[in-house]
Amino acid sequence: MQPDRLKEILTKVEAGNLDVDTALEELKSPGYEDLGFAKVDQHRNLRRGFPEVVLCEGKTEEQIVKIMQKLAETEENALATRADEDIYQAVKEELPEIEYNEAAKTLVLQQTDLAEEGSILVISAGTSDIPVAEEAYETARIMGNSVERLYDVGVAGIHRLLENQKQLRQARVVIVAAGMEGALASVVGGLVDKPVIGVPTSVGYGASFEGVASLLGMLNSCSAGVGVVNIDNGFGAAYLASSINKME
Amino acid sequence: MQPDRLKEILTKVEAGNLDVDTALEELKSPGYEDLGFAKVDQHRNLRRGFPEVVLCEGKTEEQIVKIMQKLAETEENALATRADEDIYQAVKEELPEIEYNEAAKTLVLQQTDLAEEGSILVISAGTSDIPVAEEAYETARIMGNSVERLYDVGVAGIHRLLENQKQLRQARVVIVAAGMEGALASVVGGLVDKPVIGVPTSVGYGASFEGVASLLGMLNSCSAGVGVVNIDNGFGAAYLASSINKME
Amino acid sequence: MQPDRLKEILTKVEAGNLDVDTALEELKSPGYEDLGFAKVDQHRNLRRGFPEVVLCEGKTEEQIVKIMQKLAETEENALATRADEDIYQAVKEELPEIEYNEAAKTLVLQQTDLAEEGSILVISAGTSDIPVAEEAYETARIMGNSVERLYDVGVAGIHRLLENQKQLRQARVVIVAAGMEGALASVVGGLVDKPVIGVPTSVGYGASFEGVASLLGMLNSCSAGVGVVNIDNGFGAAYLASSINKME
Amino acid sequence: MQPDRLKEILTKVEAGNLDVDTALEELKSPGYEDLGFAKVDQHRNLRRGFPEVVLCEGKTEEQIVKIMQKLAETEENALATRADEDIYQAVKEELPEIEYNEAAKTLVLQQTDLAEEGSILVISAGTSDIPVAEEAYETARIMGNSVERLYDVGVAGIHRLLENQKQLRQARVVIVAAGMEGALASVVGGLVDKPVIGVPTSVGYGASFEGVASLLGMLNSCSAGVGVVNIDNGFGAAYLASSINKME
Amino acid sequence: MQPDRLKEILTKVEAGNLDVDTALEELKSPGYEDLGFAKVDQHRNLRRGFPEVVLCEGKTEEQIVKIMQKLAETEENALATRADEDIYQAVKEELPEIEYNEAAKTLVLQQTDLAEEGSILVISAGTSDIPVAEEAYETARIMGNSVERLYDVGVAGIHRLLENQKQLRQARVVIVAAGMEGALASVVGGLVDKPVIGVPTSVGYGASFEGVASLLGMLNSCSAGVGVVNIDNGFGAAYLASSINKME
Amino acid sequence: MQPDRLKEILTKVEAGNLDVDTALEELKSPGYEDLGFAKVDQHRNLRRGFPEVVLCEGKTEEQIVKIMQKLAETEENALATRADEDIYQAVKEELPEIEYNEAAKTLVLQQTDLAEEGSILVISAGTSDIPVAEEAYETARIMGNSVERLYDVGVAGIHRLLENQKQLRQARVVIVAAGMEGALASVVGGLVDKPVIGVPTSVGYGASFEGVASLLGMLNSCSAGVGVVNIDNGFGAAYLASSINKME
Amino acid sequence: MQPDRLKEILTKVEAGNLDVDTALEELKSPGYEDLGFAKVDQHRNLRRGFPEVVLCEGKTEEQIVKIMQKLAETEENALATRADEDIYQAVKEELPEIEYNEAAKTLVLQQTDLAEEGSILVISAGTSDIPVAEEAYETARIMGNSVERLYDVGVAGIHRLLENQKQLRQARVVIVAAGMEGALASVVGGLVDKPVIGVPTSVGYGASFEGVASLLGMLNSCSAGVGVVNIDNGFGAAYLASSINKME
Amino acid sequence: MQPDRLKEILTKVEAGNLDVDTALEELKSPGYEDLGFAKVDQHRNLRRGFPEVVLCEGKTEEQIVKIMQKLAETEENALATRADEDIYQAVKEELPEIEYNEAAKTLVLQQTDLAEEGSILVISAGTSDIPVAEEAYETARIMGNSVERLYDVGVAGIHRLLENQKQLRQARVVIVAAGMEGALASVVGGLVDKPVIGVPTSVGYGASFEGVASLLGMLNSCSAGVGVVNIDNGFGAAYLASSINKME
Repeated sequence: MQPDRLKEILTKVEAGNLDVDTALEELKSPGYEDLGFAKVDQHRNLRRGFPEVVLCEGKTEEQIVKIMQKLAETEENALATRADEDIYQAVKEELPEIEYNEAAKTLVLQQTDLAEEGSILVISAGTSDIPVAEEAYETARIMGNSVERLYDVGVAGIHRLLENQKQLRQARVVIVAAGMEGALASVVGGLVDKPVIGVPTSVGYGASFEGVASLLGMLNSCSAGVGVVNIDNGFGAAYLASSINKME
Repeated sequence: MQPDRLKEILTKVEAGNLDVDTALEELKSPGYEDLGFAKVDQHRNLRRGFPEVVLCEGKTEEQIVKIMQKLAETEENALATRADEDIYQAVKEELPEIEYNEAAKTLVLQQTDLAEEGSILVISAGTSDIPVAEEAYETARIMGNSVERLYDVGVAGIHRLLENQKQLRQARVVIVAAGMEGALASVVGGLVDKPVIGVPTSVGYGASFEGVASLLGMLNSCSAGVGVVNIDNGFGAAYLASSINKME
Repeated sequence: MQPDRLKEILTKVEAGNLDVDTALEELKSPGYEDLGFAKVDQHRNLRRGFPEVVLCEGKTEEQIVKIMQKLAETEENALATRADEDIYQAVKEELPEIEYNEAAKTLVLQQTDLAEEGSILVISAGTSDIPVAEEAYETARIMGNSVERLYDVGVAGIHRLLENQKQLRQARVVIVAAGMEGALASVVGGLVDKPVIGVPTSVGYGASFEGVASLLGMLNSCSAGVGVVNIDNGFGAAYLASSINKME
Repeated sequence: MQPDRLKEILTKVEAGNLDVDTALEELKSPGYEDLGFAKVDQHRNLRRGFPEVVLCEGKTEEQIVKIMQKLAETEENALATRADEDIYQAVKEELPEIEYNEAAKTLVLQQTDLAEEGSILVISAGTSDIPVAEEAYETARIMGNSVERLYDVGVAGIHRLLENQKQLRQARVVIVAAGMEGALASVVGGLVDKPVIGVPTSVGYGASFEGVASLLGMLNSCSAGVGVVNIDNGFGAAYLASSINKME
Repeated sequence: MQPDRLKEILTKVEAGNLDVDTALEELKSPGYEDLGFAKVDQHRNLRRGFPEVVLCEGKTEEQIVKIMQKLAETEENALATRADEDIYQAVKEELPEIEYNEAAKTLVLQQTDLAEEGSILVISAGTSDIPVAEEAYETARIMGNSVERLYDVGVAGIHRLLENQKQLRQARVVIVAAGMEGALASVVGGLVDKPVIGVPTSVGYGASFEGVASLLGMLNSCSAGVGVVNIDNGFGAAYLASSINKME
Repeated sequence: MQPDRLKEILTKVEAGNLDVDTALEELKSPGYEDLGFAKVDQHRNLRRGFPEVVLCEGKTEEQIVKIMQKLAETEENALATRADEDIYQAVKEELPEIEYNEAAKTLVLQQTDLAEEGSILVISAGTSDIPVAEEAYETARIMGNSVERLYDVGVAGIHRLLENQKQLRQARVVIVAAGMEGALASVVGGLVDKPVIGVPTSVGYGASFEGVASLLGMLNSCSAGVGVVNIDNGFGAAYLASSINKME
Repeated sequence: MQPDRLKEILTKVEAGNLDVDTALEELKSPGYEDLGFAKVDQHRNLRRGFPEVVLCEGKTEEQIVKIMQKLAETEENALATRADEDIYQAVKEELPEIEYNEAAKTLVLQQTDLAEEGSILVISAGTSDIPVAEEAYETARIMGNSVERLYDVGVAGIHRLLENQKQLRQARVVIVAAGMEGALASVVGGLVDKPVIGVPTSVGYGASFEGVASLLGMLNSCSAGVGVVNIDNGFGAAYLASSINKME
Repeated sequence: MQPDRLKEILTKVEAGNLDVDTALEELKSPGYEDLGFAKVDQHRNLRRGFPEVVLCEGKTEEQIVKIMQKLAETEENALATRADEDIYQAVKEELPEIEYNEAAKTLVLQQTDLAEEGSILVISAGTSDIPVAEEAYETARIMGNSVERLYDVGVAGIHRLLENQKQLRQARVVIVAAGMEGALASVVGGLVDKPVIGVPTSVGYGASFEGVASLLGMLNSCSAGVGVVNIDNGFGAAYLASSINKME
């Protein structure tokens, strides 16, 4: 799985600098820290460019605190999403420098300088989509991107978007968070030649079916080339945007 | 059910001009012609402003021909929808003056002058939505409305719509036929202060689910006040548009 | 986007009464007030005939209060929907003249006389559909329409509707709020020649799937020309009804 | 399973009139004829009041012919549903007295006199629902019920139903076959005090979802006590109606 | 709608015993008591054999109390379903003789003797289905039927059902309340020749989708002739069973 | 149903050692204990290899306590699933030796030694899937299997699984609990030649639809031969695994 | 991935019997034959106990023939599923010894003796389910299992199953193929203590939704421990059954 | 909409080099060629980096030929998707240089040299996914990207992917086309730090629901940052990949 390391080990073995058993041991080192309930992925940063991110939903407070502590030890930046106020307080007790974005429900542990590379623009269709947009904002920011925000520019008043085309032009990647029918992703997609990532939100009621209407809208966008992530998944949208933005 | 007629009958009875049994008979007249397999609604024109319209799907050719003949006898205009080429040929044999719109799959029997009142604008998002738009066009036309068409102005190239705002301004009612994500209904809805009727089409593939994506998109339009009809129901959209357009 | 204004500016520029930079600035004026979390649409009244309406769901109390204050400054009538008791109290503190309809969960700020034009009839199938019907009632009223109500006339006792056909005849537009199977929209649609707007409600249980049964029922109405809005969307139904009722 | 027979056997064993092995054999007799691909249920008539009915869909012509021959040997009446023209021809070759209803797609083998008990009324909402209604008609008829038909009385012209209330009053059980929104079941259910069986049909298009709209409509009927069967299941509706009609 | 009464009135008018205006007035009498939020159906008992039943869900306590009081005035038996403890207390204050079944969540007001006709058997697949079964039990009982109960006989231990076939044989109508896969309805349907009514319950988790699995199971029962009602609709099942049981 | 016992009884009857009535009585013994609200299946252990297991959801505390007491009397091991803390406390009062697994929400009453046969491996994709995995663990353990656990080895860091292939190789049966897209079941299924049981969990959000995404993923596994149980049904997975593991 | 082989290679390298580059080459050998459009998995037999099986759907005739030829070269048994008559003819031309089961639509290439180990019982609920059952039969057979068949024993005539309990008792694993409501899986699951695999079939119509009803029924089986595979996936059921049956 | 051009026009007007009417005319030029049934977007290349692409589904042969001719006139490269053999022949008659990829069903009109920038890797899980992968391949190629292909590396034999990690490392963007459960997207997503685009295919049967299983799988990928496009939308995936690959 790590060919360079494999070659290095084989060379050492050939040279007699490494005996077979140690080589085997080395080759069998798991690449994760085992907490029993979690195997914290130590190779994630190398392999994917950012340490493992903690999705708080479905985990106990105790588990979250332990994982965050383990990540803190790495002296890299860390991120947890879907953290409610109680989780924030519990983590804060152990890691007082943790930052909480109440709208985004993110915990950010900044331990290195942020790069602020390139430019990602996060757009929201309405005010109610802001929590998802903020999750994207926080995620992109801690991953070392320069991030701009443009909120409440949905198509019910399309001039609000058209008036802000300069921001669209300046961005390298655009994230569109929109609920209800999610039409904004199609309209933005039709205006620009850069990657557009749609994140449908669960904003709406009745036949929005908790975001399904917006999800289907974005998947069927008549503007080609909109990439879509899961409903309310501001984190995933930013993760993808970051991997794009950091391309050389 | 028909209070004026009821009063007239009662007055006649009181005056001795009508005996009870005849009055009862009269009151019991069914208001439809019974063909066995169909009860052609003779009061439809009085009650709803246009004679019964024939949905050809699910009916045999023989049944359609018989119903069209019965409607032709009324000397009013008649309309049949979802008629394929074979049905057209079968009806034409009996009613040579029948007109067929191949895209719309409509049969029109024009027996009186058309009023061409007010103005209905039929918009399609793409070229593939034209069959549905044409069904709406033919329906609105035979019901006595003035109808304009504006095709292929979807949001992937939104300037195509913005360039034609004059037509939007001139219409009294706007019908928007759009498949895929159906965003055009929201955008049009956000631009005008007149009734907008959205007719989602089954154009699209994959997660469009035969028009469901567009249907949900229109039902969840962030532009308030878009009325929605069934998928591919150009007829229904035009029927509603006509009842609006003819309001005094 | 505003052709008359565009011509005026160009004429001024040609005449030397306006320099290019100011003209550009003018042309770039956004048409909205930016609150950061919201861009309040200042052109909405001109463009669509009524100021922006506030959907309270998904917004914080603080956001709602600020937007309502901004709308209050316009000295036009304002409306907020889906407002619970707490939101009402918070808004009332700043805008004591605000009115609250507990069933409809609407906040109404009446700052000009209401026109009471034409006539819209709001029908409910059952007692449980009243909250949605009331949302429609309040919306239509504040938008300057004369509104009548006819409640609990569902098809389980169809004589209750047939006895009230006079009200049907007197209305210009009819809104039908019905949950469960939503059959009332079809029955009403079959009786009148005026626009009928169906608003399915989430009333029901089990296989009503929170209003889906009624929504599908209305979309598939065998009575042609029923326009449908989202589940529980009394506001949208009234918005559409108002735009129809105000046609000249 | 057959306690009387069990007692009889035990009594015989006690009396020495039956040895244990024969008794076991007897008790193990399967109650069906095994054709390999089918185990024709010989107890069905005793247990349920009518011999096994053959659903042709999914069976090969050869299998259907063999099962029909096996049923013919019983000298009781037999029924096969969902039989297309080819199947009819294949069966007719072996059983020339077989009768085919083209609309209903039923094969009927009448070998005993029909009872024509009580009265079942089969109603269809539209002309397109007739095939399903006819399947119900043929099923109820061959099961020995007196059956009446009332077709094309959907709620788009509700006077057509109201004019025929006499037929409603005279029936002991009412079957309502309706597609689209299926509202007719609710309206009929609200008018009578006898059992109403709704059979949703797949008539409709778009958001009718092949009968789902009608199915949900009937399941959520605001008129209490409508029993619903599967989409297009005229056979099942008649089966239930027959079991009700034959109650003493 | 009431032909005999219509004839009587016409005869009086002819005889000069009734003037036209009074006759009209009479013909227009609505047949319901109007409470504003509800139109209590006064003809329901005549038309359908039992007074209007109150579904408490979606109604305010105040509304329920008022409707129950109105029904109490008729001196007939009355029923309310889906009543929680609070509603019970509120109604009890005004109508102390009201009876509450905590599992069934029904309010019963017995004002006449119960007939206890025929025999309805209510079966539950599991212990968790009992609330729905009890709703059926209470409904059938107050409607004047003799009712038996057989609980927890699901197919996981099919001998529990087979041991109780005597009860199956003695009933005139069988109601089967089952959640999860709802197989019990098919098994019972395969054993008897009397009407079987399936009421799917929302018991289960995961892919039971709140009763959908059981609903589909019952609709697709391979045992012909099972009539199905809405999920958890014990009331509707009993209503249908009662109309069957009371047939002469 | 119990042929050996049937033969024994018949032989006794033949020999005159058993009179017909007693034999009938014996044959009619129900094989369950009737608590009214529950018929505790006394043959379950014989028939299926483990006593009836109690699903606590949908049962009252009182019912659960009574059933557990009844099972305790059998002196066999007993299991209850989906028990919350309150239920645990209530049962503990009567059966102090009951053990509670808080994550699994299981109650275990161990009254005989556990066999610890063969080997079942329970794998979880993430930390949030542990409750379901623990339900499987507890179920398999009390049923007398040797059980191993391997948690948090999802495909986002596939080396965590690949590093633990030894555990895969040592197991006789593998249970995979995974939410989100459930890909782990496919990957494990592709690596081993032993039975793999997939239990989709409701872990995830948005378009995971409470476990549907994972369920569909597992049902469509490109690795042949993965058996799937209901969403979150750790109990069912273990039950199946146990029946496999105990095969000789 | 293959630790023994890894150790062997490392030992050779240490001993100087293998140079680093060759070792690397060896370690990089892909374990599949690359046909461009397909990478035929050469390790499948070792890893999973049977060579790669060809799903014909979605592949061209030319591709299928080439893959089958490649598999034939291994001199092991081979299987292709979902092969229509044309594919059979095309393959037969190249591999005349290929066998075709018309009902199952399987191609079998038997090149070694079949083991006929243990015993798998394949049950079908109805005659229409036989194609799926036969796919399971052919798959299990070619994989070296002894296979029995028991067809048309659905719960509409449950005595047909109860009469054949001996076959149930003799099997080590039971596969149940059932469409419609799929209740047979629950009933069988309740009768035996051995692994039961449910394969829902798409037999049925209307609300069976192409097998969804049966799928949900089996997933929600009240009989614990039924493992479910995809709709119509007779192959997958047999694959799982085979891996169970072959356990030592 | 085009600020630079707007400034240029205004400057000319100020300078007297352009009169107001001509300026207005210029500003009103629509930016599309109107064919009646289509408004070919002339600004698409400028705005989005590639000329309008023709989706053949839903268009008549005549319409497609005319649009392709119009695009050919621009002397830029052109692409049409979802073209069957007949459409290819019709277009070829007018544009003999058109190229057809039979698997991809694409028409490519190459009129300029292709850039072959960067590197996009298109992966397919199975052989049946190749048509979708080829659509992506052709789209990316004609848009001027260097494209590599890696087919049939699904997770059922995960070593086939792991053996080809070099190709993964060399690509700038990765497209994963996978049907069934779509797990390959998650596994690839977990291995790389570059943008991954998932395109679910409709390959599969039963509960794959024409690609829904794979779509949901990809949307819920536990590997963060996979962007998803519509089912079978190879074109859209390549469009997005191209916009990413061309970033500077």
